[in-house]
Amino acid sequence: MNSLDTFIFISLGVSLLAFLFAVWLYNWVKKRPADNKRIAEVGKLISSGSSTFLRKEYIMLAKFSSAVALLIFVFLPSPVWNGNVTDNIFMAAAYLCGTAFSAVAGVIGIRVATMANMKTAEAAKNGIKPSFMAGFRGGAVMGMAVVGSTLLGISLIRAITDDTSVLLGFSFGASSLALFAKAGGGIFTKTADISADLVGKVELGIPEDDPRNPAVIADNVGDNVGDVAGMGADLFDSNVASMSAALVLAGVLDGATGFNNSAMVMCYAASGLLASIIGVFMARMGKGGPTRALNKSTYITTAIFAAITAGATFAFGFEWRIWGASMIGLAVGVIIGVASNYFTDDSRRPVKNAAQASESGPALTILSGVSYGFMSVLPSLAGIGVASLAAYKICEPLGEGYPMFGIAMAAVGMLSIVGMIISNDAYGPIVDNARGLAEMGGLGDEVLEITDKLDSAGNTVKAITKGFAIGAAGLTVIALLGAFISEVNTAAAELGVAGLAGFDIMNPTVFFGMLIGAAVPAVFSAMLILGVGRNAQRMVAEIHRQFKEIIGLKEGKEGVVPEYDKCIEIATHGALRELVPAGLVAIVITLAVGFIGGVQAIGGFLCGNIVAGLLLALFMSNAGGLWDNAKKFIESGKHGGKGSDAHKAAVVGDTVGDPFKDTAGPSINTQITVVSLISSLAATLFLSFSAF
Amino acid sequence: MNSLDTFIFISLGVSLLAFLFAVWLYNWVKKRPADNKRIAEVGKLISSGSSTFLRKEYIMLAKFSSAVALLIFVFLPSPVWNGNVTDNIFMAAAYLCGTAFSAVAGVIGIRVATMANMKTAEAAKNGIKPSFMAGFRGGAVMGMAVVGSTLLGISLIRAITDDTSVLLGFSFGASSLALFAKAGGGIFTKTADISADLVGKVELGIPEDDPRNPAVIADNVGDNVGDVAGMGADLFDSNVASMSAALVLAGVLDGATGFNNSAMVMCYAASGLLASIIGVFMARMGKGGPTRALNKSTYITTAIFAAITAGATFAFGFEWRIWGASMIGLAVGVIIGVASNYFTDDSRRPVKNAAQASESGPALTILSGVSYGFMSVLPSLAGIGVASLAAYKICEPLGEGYPMFGIAMAAVGMLSIVGMIISNDAYGPIVDNARGLAEMGGLGDEVLEITDKLDSAGNTVKAITKGFAIGAAGLTVIALLGAFISEVNTAAAELGVAGLAGFDIMNPTVFFGMLIGAAVPAVFSAMLILGVGRNAQRMVAEIHRQFKEIIGLKEGKEGVVPEYDKCIEIATHGALRELVPAGLVAIVITLAVGFIGGVQAIGGFLCGNIVAGLLLALFMSNAGGLWDNAKKFIESGKHGGKGSDAHKAAVVGDTVGDPFKDTAGPSINTQITVVSLISSLAATLFLSFSAF
Repeated sequence: MNSLDTFIFISLGVSLLAFLFAVWLYNWVKKRPADNKRIAEVGKLISSGSSTFLRKEYIMLAKFSSAVALLIFVFLPSPVWNGNVTDNIFMAAAYLCGTAFSAVAGVIGIRVATMANMKTAEAAKNGIKPSFMAGFRGGAVMGMAVVGSTLLGISLIRAITDDTSVLLGFSFGASSLALFAKAGGGIFTKTADISADLVGKVELGIPEDDPRNPAVIADNVGDNVGDVAGMGADLFDSNVASMSAALVLAGVLDGATGFNNSAMVMCYAASGLLASIIGVFMARMGKGGPTRALNKSTYITTAIFAAITAGATFAFGFEWRIWGASMIGLAVGVIIGVASNYFTDDSRRPVKNAAQASESGPALTILSGVSYGFMSVLPSLAGIGVASLAAYKICEPLGEGYPMFGIAMAAVGMLSIVGMIISNDAYGPIVDNARGLAEMGGLGDEVLEITDKLDSAGNTVKAITKGFAIGAAGLTVIALLGAFISEVNTAAAELGVAGLAGFDIMNPTVFFGMLIGAAVPAVFSAMLILGVGRNAQRMVAEIHRQFKEIIGLKEGKEGVVPEYDKCIEIATHGALRELVPAGLVAIVITLAVGFIGGVQAIGGFLCGNIVAGLLLALFMSNAGGLWDNAKKFIESGKHGGKGSDAHKAAVVGDTVGDPFKDTAGPSINTQITVVSLISSLAATLFLSFSAF
Repeated sequence: MNSLDTFIFISLGVSLLAFLFAVWLYNWVKKRPADNKRIAEVGKLISSGSSTFLRKEYIMLAKFSSAVALLIFVFLPSPVWNGNVTDNIFMAAAYLCGTAFSAVAGVIGIRVATMANMKTAEAAKNGIKPSFMAGFRGGAVMGMAVVGSTLLGISLIRAITDDTSVLLGFSFGASSLALFAKAGGGIFTKTADISADLVGKVELGIPEDDPRNPAVIADNVGDNVGDVAGMGADLFDSNVASMSAALVLAGVLDGATGFNNSAMVMCYAASGLLASIIGVFMARMGKGGPTRALNKSTYITTAIFAAITAGATFAFGFEWRIWGASMIGLAVGVIIGVASNYFTDDSRRPVKNAAQASESGPALTILSGVSYGFMSVLPSLAGIGVASLAAYKICEPLGEGYPMFGIAMAAVGMLSIVGMIISNDAYGPIVDNARGLAEMGGLGDEVLEITDKLDSAGNTVKAITKGFAIGAAGLTVIALLGAFISEVNTAAAELGVAGLAGFDIMNPTVFFGMLIGAAVPAVFSAMLILGVGRNAQRMVAEIHRQFKEIIGLKEGKEGVVPEYDKCIEIATHGALRELVPAGLVAIVITLAVGFIGGVQAIGGFLCGNIVAGLLLALFMSNAGGLWDNAKKFIESGKHGGKGSDAHKAAVVGDTVGDPFKDTAGPSINTQITVVSLISSLAATLFLSFSAF
C-alpha cells in the first residue's frame, strides 16, 4: 500500500466519521421537545413544499444529466470512436456520481433544516442557549453531509482510477447540480418573496407571513431551497472543484516524485473535515452571545486545522512551503470576510450613509448602494490577487508545476474548514424560519426576542462565511485554469500537436476570448434577474386567481385555506424553466468560443469570465447585503423608522438587492466553475476541431 | 522631403482648412437673425455661467498640469539626472500642449454652442429646416475645432521630433484635460440637474426651467459643460490616443521600411478630416426629417473616407491589408452603434419592458434596466473582440509588428470620421437647450413642436455616435497596450535588461495586476457617483438658503432674481473637488502596481482595466439611456402617462441612470486612457525600480 492509498483510506474513514456524526446530530436535534400544534402544521407544509421543489428539480435534473452523461460518453475525454471506451464510461459515471452525491447531501440538509426550524422555535421557550444549539446542530448536519460526500466521492474515484481527469467529470456533475440548486433555488425563493410581498403587503395590506396569503408557504420553502440546499450545493461544488484541480495538478507532479502531492491533498482535506467535526462538537454558546459563539467556533476550527496539518506535514515529510500556501488561503479568507463585512455592517459608514440617503428618495438609496457595492470589490479582488501571488511565490522554489499547485492548495486551505462554514451558513435560514414559526405559533414576545437575536447573529456571521466562499471560488477557478492547461497538454501530447505554455494577452485570439468571457456573467445574471421578474408575474396572477375564486379566503373565514401547493408548483416550474436558458447560453457560448478560437481563445475566455464574474458577484452580493441592512437599520427606528419615506425608499433598495444577493450574485460562482470544467473536459475536442 | 514630411505638410494644410471652415460655420451661425429679448437674457446667463465653469476648471487644471509637467520633466521618459535633458523638456512641453490644445477646442465649442442655442430657437420660427441647420452647423464648429487641433498638434510634434514617445506625452495631456472636462463636467451637470429637481419639482412643485429656481441656470450650463465641452475633450482624447498609438507602432516598423507606415497614419487621419469637412458642408435636411439627415451625413462621410483612403492607398502604394483593417474598424463602429441602439430605442422590447415593469413600482424599473444593461455589453464586447481579431489576422501576413499596427489602424479608421461624429453629438445639447430657450422666450407651441422633433433626433443619433466612441476607445486601448510593450522594449534595450514578448495570464504577477486593474473602474465610478450625491447636498443647502434669505423670491416678485452664480460656483467647485480624489486613486493604484509588480503586473493591470472598464462603461451608458427613454415613453402617454405611478417609478430609474450615463459611464473611457498612458510613460521607471 503506497502512501497515497493510506491517505485515501484515512479520507474514507474520516468521511464515514462525518456521516456518523451527522446521524448523531440529527438524532440529537430530533429529540428536542416539540408540542405546539400550529407550528407542527405549518412546519409540515414547509417541509412538504421543500420536498416538492426538490423532487421536481431532481426529476428535471435527472433528464438533463442523462442527456449530458450520454454526450459525455460519446465525446469525452475523446470521441468514443477514437479512444478508449472504458475512459468514456468512467467519465460519464463520475459525472452522474457528482450530481447524485450532491443531491443526496441536499436532501439530507433540507430534511434536517425543516425539522430543526420547529425545534429551534420551541427550544426558545427554554431560553436562548438550547435554541441556539438546536439551530446550530441542525445546520451542522448539512455541513457534515456535504463535506462527507465530497471526501467520500473523491476518495472512491481516486481509489478506483489513477486518471485524475475523471475527477473533473465528478466535479462537473457537482457543478451541474449546483447550477440547478443555486440558480434555480435563487429564482424560486425570490419569486415567492416578491410575489407574496406585492400582493400581500402592497395590494391587500395584510401582514408578512399571514396564512391567508397563498404564497406564504412558498416564501418559507424558498428560504430552505435557496439558502440551505442551494448554498450546500454551491459549497459542495467549490469544495469538489478545488480538490479536483489540486489532484489534477498533483497528478502531473507525482509522475516525477511518487504520490506525495496527491497524498498531501487527501490528507489536508481529511484534516479539514476532522477539524470541522471537532469544532462543531465543541461549539457552545457562552456569555458573548450567538455571534461570538459562531465566530469562535470558526476560529477554533481554523486553529485545529492549522495544527493538524502542521503535524501531518512534519510527520509525513510533506513540503512546508505548500503548508504555507494553504495557511495563506485560510488567512486571506478571513481578511476578505472582514472587508466584505465593512460594507454590509450597519455600524459602519456605508450602510449608515445608504440609510441616510434614503431620506431623499429611492433613487439615492440605489445610487449609494451601487457605489459602495462597486467599491467593495477592491479589497476582495486584491485579497485574491495577493493570495494567489503569495502562494505562487512561496512554492516557486519547489520547481516547475509547484507554483500552480500552491495556488490550488491555497484554495483547498481556504475550503478546508468548509464543514464549519456550512454549519454556520445553514444556521441562518433555520433560525430565520424559526422566528416565523414562533410568530405563527404564538409563542409570545419573549421567544420572539430570542429568535430575533439568533437571526441577527446569522446575518452577521454570513459576511465572514461569504468571504470564504467567494475567496475560495476565486482561487479555485485560478487553479482550474491551471488544470485546464494541464488537460490541454495531456491531450496535445496524445494528439501529437503543440501544447500550451500559457496565454498571452497580446495574442488577439486570447483577447477576443477574454472580451466574450467577460460578457458572459453579465448576460447570465441578467437572464436570471429577468427570470425572477417573469416568474413573479405568473405567481401574482395565481394569487389573484385564488383570492377571487376561493370564497372566504380574503376575509379569513375559519377552515378556508389557500392552495399553497399551486404557488409552490408555479415557483418550482418557473424557476427551472427560467434557469435552463441562462445555463445553456453560458455553455453554448463557451463551446462556440472553443470551436472558433481553439484553446487559446478558451484561455482568454476563462480569464475574462473569472475577472468579470468575481467583479459582478462581489458587487451584487455586497450591494444586496448593504440594502438589506440599511432597511433593517431604518426599521430599528432610525431616519423615521418603519413606514417613513426613508423606509419606503429603503424597501425599494432591498427589493432590488434581493435577486442581486440571493439569485444572480451567488450563482455566478457556479457559472464560472461550470464553464471552467466544460473547457477542461472538452480540451481534446477544441484541440482537434477548432476553426483557427 | 521624404514622403512622411509630405503627409505632415498635407495634414497641417487640412487642419488649417478645418479651422477656416470652422470660422465660416461660426459666422454663418452668428448671422442668423435673433431678436427675442428674454432669450438673449437667459442665453447670456448660460453663456457666462459656462465661462465661469471653464475658467475655474482651467485655473485648477493649470495648477495640476504645472505640477504634472514638473514631474514629467524630472522623471520622464527617464530621470533627468540619468538621461537627456532635451528629451525631458520635449516631453513636458508636449504634455502642456496636449492640455492646451484640448482646452482651446473646448472654449471654442462652448462659445459657439451657447450662441447656437439661441439662434436655433429663433430659427425655428421660420420652420424646421433653418432651425436644423443652425443647430447642426453650431455643433460642427466644435467638430472641426477638435479634429483640427488633433491633427495640428500631432503634425507639429511629428514635424519637430522623430521621437514618437513624445506623442504619448501630448496624448497624456489630452487625457488629463479630458478627465477634468468629462468627469468634472459630468459631476457638474448631474449635481445641478438633481438639485434643481429635488428642490424645485419635488419640494416646491414649481415647473422645470422656472427662473425662480436658483439652480436653473446651473442646470442649463451643465448641458454645455458636460455634453459639449466634456464630450469634445473625450473624443479629442480618444482621437489623439489612437493616432499616437498608431504612430508609436508605425515608428518601430518604419525603422526597417522607410516612413511608409507613419505616412499612412497621417494620410488616413487627414483623409478622415477632409471627409468630415465635405460631409458637414453637404449636410441638408430633406424630407426624411432630422434623424435621417444626421445619419445620412454620417454614412456619406464614411463613404467619402473609404473612397479617399482607397485612392490614397492605390496612389501612394500603401498596404491594402491595412486599409482593410481600417475599414473593419469603421464597419464595426456602425454595428456596435446599431446594437446599442436596440437596448435604448423606445420602439424595441427592452425599453418597452422597462416601462411595463414600472407599473409594479421602482424596484422592478431598476431591476429590468440593470438586466438589459448587463445584456447590452455582449454585442459591443463581441464587436470589439471580432474587430481586433480580424484586423490582426488581416495584417498578420505583412510580418511582425504589423498585426498590432493593424489594430491601431482599425481604431484610427473608426475615429477617422470623428469630425462628423462630434458635429452630430454637439447638435444634441444645442437643440436641447434651444427647446428650453424657446419655452422661456414664449415662442409658442409651433416652435416647441419643431424643437421637440430636433431634440428627439439628437437623442436617437446619439446611440450610433456612442457606439463609435466606445468601440474606438476599446480598440485604442488595445493599441495602447501594444504601444506600452513597444515603450518597455525600447526602454529595456537602453537599460540593457530583458524586454517583453507579451503577458501570460498564467503568470501570477500578471493575474494579480489583472484583478486589481479590474477593480479600478468600479472604484472610480463609485467615487464619481458618490461625489455627485455629496455635491448635490451642498447645492440643495444653498438653494434652501436663497429661498429663505432672498425676500420675494419664492413668490416670484417682479425684479427679484436668485443668485444664479452662487449655484454655478458650488457646482463648479464641488465637481472639481470630488473629481480629484477619484482621478488620484486611479493614478496612485497604477503607480503602486507598477512599482510593486513591475511591467508584467502593469500588463495584466491594463488588461483587467480595459475589460472591466468597457464592461462597466457599456452597462452604465446603456442602462442609463434605457431608463431615460422608458421615462419619455411613459410621458408620451403610455402606462398612465405623466403623473401615474408608473411614471413615478420611471423617474426613479431616470434619476439613477443620470449619473450612470452622464457622469461615471463616459468617464471610464478617459480613466482607461489615462492609466494606459501613465503606464507607457513610466515604463522606464517600472523597469528600473520595481520590487519584483
